[in-house]
Order: sequence, then structure tokens, then C-alpha cells
Amino acid sequence: MINAAGREIPETIKGFGKVRPYAGPFATIPEGRMAGPKIRVNKPKSEKLLKSIDQAIEASGLKDGMTISFHHHFRNGDYVLNLVVEAIARKNIKGLTLAPSSLNDINDAIIPYIEQGVITAIETSGARGKLGKLLTFGNLAKPTIIRSHGGRARAIESGELHIDVAFIGAPCCDSYGNINGVDGPSACGSMGYAMVDAAYADTVVAITDNLVPHPVYPISIPQTQVDYIVQLPSIGDPKGIASGALRISRNPRELLIAEYAAGVIEYSGYFKDGFSLQLGGGASLAAAKFIKEKMFAKGITASFGVGGVTAPFVEMLEAGLIKTLFDVQDFDIPSIQSLKNNPRHLEMSASYYANPHNGGPIVNNLDVVILSATEVDVDFNVNVITDSNGIIMGASGGHSDTAAGANLAIVVAPLLRGRLPMVLDRVNTIVTPGETVDVIVTERGIAVNPRRTDLLDNLKDSGLPIMSIHDLQRIAYDLAGEPQPVAVSDEVVAVIEYRDGTIIDVVRRPL
Amino acid sequence: MINAAGREIPETIKGFGKVRPYAGPFATIPEGRMAGPKIRVNKPKSEKLLKSIDQAIEASGLKDGMTISFHHHFRNGDYVLNLVVEAIARKNIKGLTLAPSSLNDINDAIIPYIEQGVITAIETSGARGKLGKLLTFGNLAKPTIIRSHGGRARAIESGELHIDVAFIGAPCCDSYGNINGVDGPSACGSMGYAMVDAAYADTVVAITDNLVPHPVYPISIPQTQVDYIVQLPSIGDPKGIASGALRISRNPRELLIAEYAAGVIEYSGYFKDGFSLQLGGGASLAAAKFIKEKMFAKGITASFGVGGVTAPFVEMLEAGLIKTLFDVQDFDIPSIQSLKNNPRHLEMSASYYANPHNGGPIVNNLDVVILSATEVDVDFNVNVITDSNGIIMGASGGHSDTAAGANLAIVVAPLLRGRLPMVLDRVNTIVTPGETVDVIVTERGIAVNPRRTDLLDNLKDSGLPIMSIHDLQRIAYDLAGEPQPVAVSDEVVAVIEYRDGTIIDVVRRPL
Repeated sequence: MINAAGREIPETIKGFGKVRPYAGPFATIPEGRMAGPKIRVNKPKSEKLLKSIDQAIEASGLKDGMTISFHHHFRNGDYVLNLVVEAIARKNIKGLTLAPSSLNDINDAIIPYIEQGVITAIETSGARGKLGKLLTFGNLAKPTIIRSHGGRARAIESGELHIDVAFIGAPCCDSYGNINGVDGPSACGSMGYAMVDAAYADTVVAITDNLVPHPVYPISIPQTQVDYIVQLPSIGDPKGIASGALRISRNPRELLIAEYAAGVIEYSGYFKDGFSLQLGGGASLAAAKFIKEKMFAKGITASFGVGGVTAPFVEMLEAGLIKTLFDVQDFDIPSIQSLKNNPRHLEMSASYYANPHNGGPIVNNLDVVILSATEVDVDFNVNVITDSNGIIMGASGGHSDTAAGANLAIVVAPLLRGRLPMVLDRVNTIVTPGETVDVIVTERGIAVNPRRTDLLDNLKDSGLPIMSIHDLQRIAYDLAGEPQPVAVSDEVVAVIEYRDGTIIDVVRRPL
Repeated sequence: MINAAGREIPETIKGFGKVRPYAGPFATIPEGRMAGPKIRVNKPKSEKLLKSIDQAIEASGLKDGMTISFHHHFRNGDYVLNLVVEAIARKNIKGLTLAPSSLNDINDAIIPYIEQGVITAIETSGARGKLGKLLTFGNLAKPTIIRSHGGRARAIESGELHIDVAFIGAPCCDSYGNINGVDGPSACGSMGYAMVDAAYADTVVAITDNLVPHPVYPISIPQTQVDYIVQLPSIGDPKGIASGALRISRNPRELLIAEYAAGVIEYSGYFKDGFSLQLGGGASLAAAKFIKEKMFAKGITASFGVGGVTAPFVEMLEAGLIKTLFDVQDFDIPSIQSLKNNPRHLEMSASYYANPHNGGPIVNNLDVVILSATEVDVDFNVNVITDSNGIIMGASGGHSDTAAGANLAIVVAPLLRGRLPMVLDRVNTIVTPGETVDVIVTERGIAVNPRRTDLLDNLKDSGLPIMSIHDLQRIAYDLAGEPQPVAVSDEVVAVIEYRDGTIIDVVRRPL
């Protein structure tokens, strides 16, 4: 069948089941009720502290075929996922579904356990490097399910992703299981993704290298949700968890793109006092610099910012340019410090951030978001998950969530990447549907989605190089030639779930 | 049948159904899953603001026979419950179950609507005055269900108390429904009871007299849970919501009881660095003064306090005698200010406070709690719900929750109230089972539950007037004679649910 994004999707996928096709960003209306978490009992002064991961696995009742989850706030410094999977493998448990909020290069260490059948299915926001290749070519029993951050929260809350045991790396954990992410040697800041796992998993195991007396504060994950606690010498490498401070690009092409993006915001009609914005990724860090200047110049302040938080955002908060920051994840030390110390810097769960099926995630209040892309196409569809060879090498993240929520979704990307055009007839894989993308900014020109005649009007006198997406594509093709589509087999290796649970695309195994 | 508290309870109660008898404080093990809240959808930038309570009632789909809920943080200053019930009555909706977290004298205004059949059943922590009399004698279609604060959270989370529409008085609400209780003319402090309603009700209506631009912070109830917002000129009378500062008793009898209670704590074995305590009610306010002195004298600090928070508790927090405060409700302005400004003063939900069926409510960590009583008996059972005539005039509150959770549950009460002995053979109504009560303190003597031989040992050399509960009763009877039991009919007018959902007692209609 052909879904509303124009993609041909099997009606049933082996190892996945029946497909609900994507029908438009807000076309599929859910019914019924959310999952009910397991009822627990805890007698006064019960002991939650166990001696080892092994003991926790036993206590959790983990069995063949169950689903385990992890959070990726420790990014490339995470020890927890690898240690737990190794311990599970030693116990000869097989056929697990691994459902982390995302995977990083450091998790390449679990590849042997996928090959041995300890893990036979993966549900994640994305994967890179060797893991990405394995998911693309590795013949797992089930296709990988790729979800956005909001879509994962929705899937957990709706019960579609049922977590049997959540293992939560806890930078600070008290003796009864209250957790925060802002204290300790492995501080990662917001625990936003893990909050959803803790609220819904049948069993929750906190793994910490910083066990403190009860009670700790602030509390990000409450003791009411935590069953067991394991203390380890170290749960992460601080250098991999948070960079000291991200460097803003000096690449002239990237700076030009950033300046154009800031210009689009300025003339869009949304750049007024009280506007809100989300920045994320390298290109938008550079854009922050230009937006900041424009805000100072015009005396405009933002009501709130949303992130993935980085130091430039924190600086805007501290300068009073942004009144409040909503934080689902932190990327550097200044952001972690700010979350800890600034009452206007608010931690939020992935559900509050972006779940389309609650009473209003914060993305629904966004005016502006700046997003990146690996490819876009003439229908404004965006790919952030596969590369030009059709191999998984990215993450869905909050991309489709924020694009759907924001009034103005700007995608920034170089027109050529290496020697390949970035504007295609059809992206290899759709993560974010073109209906929700308003502007594509490259160093050679800016294309506005023709659906947004209002934006086209507003940008008319901006002096920015506005052109049609087809003109933009033509420039790219003139420079680098028309790229060949990736030849693929019929085998579906990954399913791209839209945030509402419908299937917007699949990744087929490249030939 | 006879339950484990020795009470004769019908197996089935008209208007209530089949009874699960109380079997001991931790004997009934729940199974299964919690309720799943309704799945919502919210399109970006949807309008949540409605023009009136009437519009909100229509939008909520409220129909005959449904259940509505309210929170009682506004105490005797609450306008919300009365206004909403009046509006519902005008719409000729009938047969509703009213399920507020508690009822206060100000809610006497709804009596006509109970008499008219707008409300035909009530589930609450308690009721006083005219409402209490009405529930005792008023011939409602169903017996009133009395729940503790933790028991109510459990009932909501388990689905036993299903709320169709929650009306939440919101001291500070932004235009997308983020709520806190610390700002605005009707500031009440913690929103702890309302948090559970907001998380589980099918429809949530915020009613505010302080609508502010999005986003507000701090956030106690998130926009993801709020469907509609109604703005009114005023939602409460500040004088009724919070007293300026509660006066500590100067009554010599009460001061003596307080001093004895502090003495019991001092010698109990739990009075050491890092201990934790809950104070609530007038008598324990006086006790705070003595405990504070002992803590200063011995250089002891508490790891945390739990409340119902009042100014003396806040003073201990600020003096460093208590490290953190967990707050489900505030009683005075200093407490509200402290919650707003002191990061060591933490807001908590009723479930975090006391729900016995989660991974560990904070009451499970308590060392010491001081509680009041209207009657106790020689089995240490406590009544806080009916008076000596068998009429409902109190509230279950956190009484049975904290008694079950704490290592040392002290009940303080005068030996005589008016001319009636307070230590009976059998209390008229059991709210808190004697198994969970450790010490009863009166101005004439102190009785230790014989189950607690360890405490008896520890208190031996305290110099306190320790005696058996029977001796205590004899003193009372010698002074005032043996009281006559209340003559009652067979008709059950209220069901006293223990915190785990079993039935510990019933209130029968007095003859």
C-alpha cells in the first residue's frame, strides 16, 4: 500500500506485524486508555539495595523474550547498557528486545550479544557506526523499530512498547531510590527520557556510582517507581557524557547557513516578544549566535526555549533573552550546572516534551525550531536516519516531533554533502514528513514549502535568497550530477514509526 | 463477618457492593495493573481557555451518574467546589458521585444539591459540621466512602475510584494549563492531592483567578494533563485558605501532652541523627517546640520532615534542624512561602506521600509520627472520624497511612474530652488499627502497645508516666464513669476503607 507520505509499505511486515499506515501528521486519532503500570507493594523500611547487576537481574525476574530499556543521557560515556547486557548474556538469557531511548558508538560493545541471540530485536531512536550497519545488514529476527523521542514516550504510555525491566543509570540515587541527574561524577543533567521508563516499566533497577543518604533532592525519578538499587564504582565516563563546551562552527558555509536561518526567523512573522524556540545540533548552535544578536538589537525576549540544551542556550537564559528553558537532555557541563542551579531551567520528561497523545506536549507551543537533515526532497520530506548508501547512521530524535509542533520548522543543511546533492527527488527514508517542514535553508538558497504562502509573503522583502525547492535541486544537480537511487532488496530491516504510531517509511536492506 | 480488626462487617453493603475485609496492615497483597489514563490528543496551539464553568461542564461531557473530583487545599476558603456544583445543578445533571480529597465547613453550601439528588454519593477523607451530620443521617443512595489520603491515591491509581471530571482550583495557571499553587491571590502551596486527580481523571478542568502567560514555573501539574481552563474573578478566600500563623497552644494540659510526646521520642531509640518525623495538627505543633529544644540540646538533625506543613516545621527547616521537607499540603503563609522559595522544601503528590501500593511512599521511611485522636481503645485502635454520638465529624487524612509507615506512631489526646473518657473498650469507629499504633500519650499517663516490648524497654528509665492502657482507661473511668456505647441501627451510612482498599469498619446510623 501507499501511505500518505507517498511511500510503498507492506501491509504486514515479518517480525513486526500489521502496519498502520501514516495518514498525515494529525490524521490518526487514538482511542482508549494508556497502559496501567504494574501495582507494586513496598513494606516500610524494605531494603532496595542489591549487591550486583547479577542480583538485580535475578530479582527482576528477567526471562527469555522480555523487553529491557535504558536511557541515553550518558551518550558516549555510558557504561550501564553494556554492563547490563554482558551480565544478562552470562546468565544465558536469550531473545530479548532492547529498547533504549537511543544508542551511541560506545554501545558497539553489545554487538557480540546481538550476534549470539541475547538480543534479537531493537527499538530505538537511532544507531550509528557499526551498530547502524548491523541493524541494516545483520539479519536480526525482527526489523528494528525507529521512534522519535515523543513517539517512544507515546509507545510506552500506550502500552505498545511494554518494558519488563528498565535499567536506569542514576548519577545520584538515595538509599530508597530517589534519583536525580545533576549530582555526582556521572552527572548528565536532565533525566527526561528515563522518566517515562521509570513510570511504566514493570521493574525498575537504578544503577548508580553515587549512592547518597535518603532523601536526595531535587528528585527527578521518585522512589515510588524504583524497585532495586545497585551500586557500581563507575557508571559512566564524564568525558563522554558531557563535553566541556561545544565549539561553535567556524566553517564559513555553516555560518552562512546559520545566518540565513536567523534571517528567516527574523522575517517569518514569529519573531516577536514572547516567541519560543528550539535549537539543537551543530548548525543551530551557530544560528543561536545570530538570533541572539537580533534579539538584543530588537529588544525581543523569548518566553521559553526547548532542548537538548547546550551552553549557548544557557547563556541566553542567563542573559534574560529566554525566560524559561525546558530540558529533556543536556550536552555539556554548563547546561547541567544550569539545570541544577537555575529555577527557570526546568527538567521535563520525553512525554512532556513531545508525546503527541497527551493533553499538550511543549512542542505544541513552539514557534520556531531549527533542525538538521542528511537529505531532503522536493516534497520537503526529511531523512535523518539513513545515509546515501541506505545504511542506518542517525537518529530520529525530536525531529518529527518538533517539526509537527512548531509554527515554523526550519531545516538547515549544506546543499552538497561530500560530492552528493542533498536535495533529492525522494529521500531514501522519510523520518519527518514534508507537510510539517516549512523552510529548507542551504548555503546556496532557501526554499519555502509552497503550502506556506504566508511565509513566502513575509520573506519577500527579506533580501534572503528565496527560491523554489526545484531551483535549489537544480543548482545541486548542476554542480554534482543527479544521484543514483540506492538499490535495495525487498527485505525490511527497519520500520520508521511516525510519532503517532503509524508507519511513515521502512528501511529496506541495500543490495 | 468479623475482620482482622475485630469488627463485624456485612459481606455486602447496599450501594457499595461486596466487601473485602481488612486483614492486617500489610496482609492484602494487590495484583494486576494500575488504571490507564485516557489517551488525549492536543493539536498544536489549540485553545484550552473557556469562558465559564458552564462551558467547561459542557466541554467535559459531564453526564448523570458520573464522578467529579476536587482538591481541598483551599480548605475553608474554597469557592471552587461550591461554584461548580451549583453550575452542575443549574444544568439539571443528577446522580453524581462527589469525590473530593476532603470536605470543609464552607462546603455546607452544597447540602441543597445533595438533597435535590444532584449528588447521590460521596467519597472523601472526611466531613464536619452540617455535612457530617447529613452523611450520617441524610439517607444518601449510597454509603459515603471514607478514605485516607494514601488510600484515595491508591483508589484513583488502581481505578477503583474512577474520576470522570476533575475540577482543579489553580492558584496560578498559564494559558496552556501548567499549574502551580505558590503564586497568586489564592496561593495554597502544595497541590499534592490534586496531582493524582490530574494524572488520572478523564477530563481535567483548571479553574483559576490568576491566568498568566505561558509558560509558568514551577510546574506542579503539567499542561499535558489539563484539558480546559476557566478564569474566574476569585477562586478562594485567602483568609480561609491559609492562616497567617497558627498559634501554639497555651493550654497547660495540651503542653503537658506535647512534652510527654517529645519525651517518648527522645527515649524511643529513634531519636538520633538522621531521624525523620511527621507532625500534624494542634497537639503536635506544641510537640514541635519541645522536640526542637531536644534536637538543639543534643545536636541532632532530622533527614526529613513530612507534612501537612506549618510554620514551626518551616522554622526547623530554616534552622537546619531538618534537612528536607516533603509537603502534600500547607496550612499557613510561611509554609507556602517556604515551598516557593526553599529548594529543600519539596512538593509531593498524595501517592508519593502515602499510597501503599507503589514502590515506596515517603511514609514508609518515617521514624516518628505524632497523631491526634477523637477516641482510642484498649486495643490501641484509633477513631478520628466519628464523635461520641457516632456522628461523622472528622477526617481520615494521613492518619492510618503514617501510623502504618512510621517506626513510632504516637497518638496524643486528652484523657477526658468534655466529661467523656477518651480510652474506651472499643472505639465507635476504627480508622487506624491498633496494630499500627505504638504509643498513646495523655496528660495522665502514657501507654505503650504491648507488641512493642522494645519500646517498653527503651522507655523504662525515661521518667515518663508509663502505664498499661488498662490503667489509663481505669483512671478515665474513675474520673468520668464508664461511657455508654452509641446505639445504632443496622443501616450502614459510611464505609471506612483502610488504605489498602479493604474495609476496616463501617459507620452505622445512630438511633
